[in-house]
Amino acid sequence: MTNSDLSKIKAPINEELQNFNRLYKDSMKSSVTLVDLVTGYILKQKGKKIRPLLVLLSAKLCGGVTERSYRGAILVELLHTATLVHDDVVDDAKKRRGFPSINAIWKNKIAVLLGDYLLAKGLMLSVEGTDFDFLGIVTGTVKRMSEGELLQISKTRKLNLDEETYFRIISDKTASLLATCCEIGAHSATENEEKRQMMKEYGENLGMAFQIRDDILDLVGKTKIFGKDQGGDIKEKKVTLPLLYAIKNSPEKESAEVIKAIKKGADGESVKKIIEFAVKYKGIEHAEQVAMEYALKAEKSLEKFEDSPEKESLMSLLHFVVERNK
Amino acid sequence: MTNSDLSKIKAPINEELQNFNRLYKDSMKSSVTLVDLVTGYILKQKGKKIRPLLVLLSAKLCGGVTERSYRGAILVELLHTATLVHDDVVDDAKKRRGFPSINAIWKNKIAVLLGDYLLAKGLMLSVEGTDFDFLGIVTGTVKRMSEGELLQISKTRKLNLDEETYFRIISDKTASLLATCCEIGAHSATENEEKRQMMKEYGENLGMAFQIRDDILDLVGKTKIFGKDQGGDIKEKKVTLPLLYAIKNSPEKESAEVIKAIKKGADGESVKKIIEFAVKYKGIEHAEQVAMEYALKAEKSLEKFEDSPEKESLMSLLHFVVERNK
Repeated sequence: MTNSDLSKIKAPINEELQNFNRLYKDSMKSSVTLVDLVTGYILKQKGKKIRPLLVLLSAKLCGGVTERSYRGAILVELLHTATLVHDDVVDDAKKRRGFPSINAIWKNKIAVLLGDYLLAKGLMLSVEGTDFDFLGIVTGTVKRMSEGELLQISKTRKLNLDEETYFRIISDKTASLLATCCEIGAHSATENEEKRQMMKEYGENLGMAFQIRDDILDLVGKTKIFGKDQGGDIKEKKVTLPLLYAIKNSPEKESAEVIKAIKKGADGESVKKIIEFAVKYKGIEHAEQVAMEYALKAEKSLEKFEDSPEKESLMSLLHFVVERNK
Repeated sequence: MTNSDLSKIKAPINEELQNFNRLYKDSMKSSVTLVDLVTGYILKQKGKKIRPLLVLLSAKLCGGVTERSYRGAILVELLHTATLVHDDVVDDAKKRRGFPSINAIWKNKIAVLLGDYLLAKGLMLSVEGTDFDFLGIVTGTVKRMSEGELLQISKTRKLNLDEETYFRIISDKTASLLATCCEIGAHSATENEEKRQMMKEYGENLGMAFQIRDDILDLVGKTKIFGKDQGGDIKEKKVTLPLLYAIKNSPEKESAEVIKAIKKGADGESVKKIIEFAVKYKGIEHAEQVAMEYALKAEKSLEKFEDSPEKESLMSLLHFVVERNK
């Protein structure tokens, strides 16, 4: 997604996003200087803020951005930031968005504690605002996200993944949070249960399309400037949809060899060969088609809403998600 | 605290504790096999369960154990377990209660995620039970606990601690959770605001006494079978109450030397010398007195309650906390 594409998508809620940025910064304030130092560092990096964007667009589409919408947007962004900080500990990652990660600068100890702090802070804001519906939605999501990651780890170790488990993993670890953003946005703007449900489904399907595209790009995307190397998933023994499909739809002799190579710990040339195998047996094409199907499902969830700049933005977001090259 | 002392304290709520153990085990169940494997390992270790004990005793003292009391007890124990799992990652600890830690067996990745899972699970139970008052209490506590630890880290690094900051740190990182246990127990049993407040104060002061005793034992306790070495805090540059007092009440020449030795990273003989310094300048005596004062304050919070076996247990707990030798 280029920055200019994203600017267009953000246009209908530019003002609201500015309000959000101010409130988000305030929400992180702590009486502990070290906390302010680390959160100040996080704030300087300016992520894409896709999650608050989803909350605010969903709210506007469902009736209008309210005070509750801002609290919801802050909640999901704090939660997302907390999981990123923990993820970097988990993966021992030294970089995040091109900057040294929190654990790289301040060590694991501070990173784990700061993640806990940010999560608690987000939940506290919802308690203080008596947004109990948000709490129900979000605590279920945190549980699903950690379960999804844990399921992925256990399946990765044994390398016995099937498509059904793959879809469960990406739904839990990625789509659940995007669904939550849209659901919370809708909750903040309308009492209409049908609208809330439609927005949740939009977010879930957007998230599925997003993660599948991510998994495709890991195999055949251009090497990202700050991102992982091509085939990073293979090196980590993560078998994603394109490979799953290719393994199922290739002669047993070839697929057995590929599985053996992944198990052994593929690198360099053997990673290249495995990617070629995924392409040869139409794994990439298949995954692209599945991502497209999810995007279409998401589009369908928006059908009943009247046309508006917000709806336009949510549609554009779908296109970018399935078409992006990095 | 010996096991027989603890048995006596538990006697008035033996049946309730058995109910709790069953419900607690159920609460951890997951559809992800790996999660069940790790939580099964945690459950086998059987901690002292001081926190659920506090919830249930407080509830019984305030009117009786209810369904909400059990949910509260599960919430605090899940939260406590989550922080222990994260703490072991944070401290790179290889043992917990004499068993290999989660991170030692399953690595940091799984330990961080499992901690997040347990915390979310606890909060979800409260949401499902519509115990919104618990959520308000507990999210504030999680925030205080992480802030307390972070404050301790930043002060430890610079070695510029004063008594006021020391008390804030131990209040945030330890006393807040014990206060929460008693407050939640009271909330589950009575609408009486005065009783709720008294129980919260009891827990806070119990927690302060507990942590100060812990800090004393780190310096002059018998080496624990499974615990850390004597003077572990000094090696980690953690200056606790006994040393703070001794530094303030000794000739500047001596205190400057001690500070220098701690900063350099004390070990072996120099740790011994620093402990002798703390003893010589009455740091231990002073800290024991302060712990006793907190215990007396806690006792005072129970005064207005009628005599009962539960009250007796909560009193006994105070004695053990300030008198224990390990």
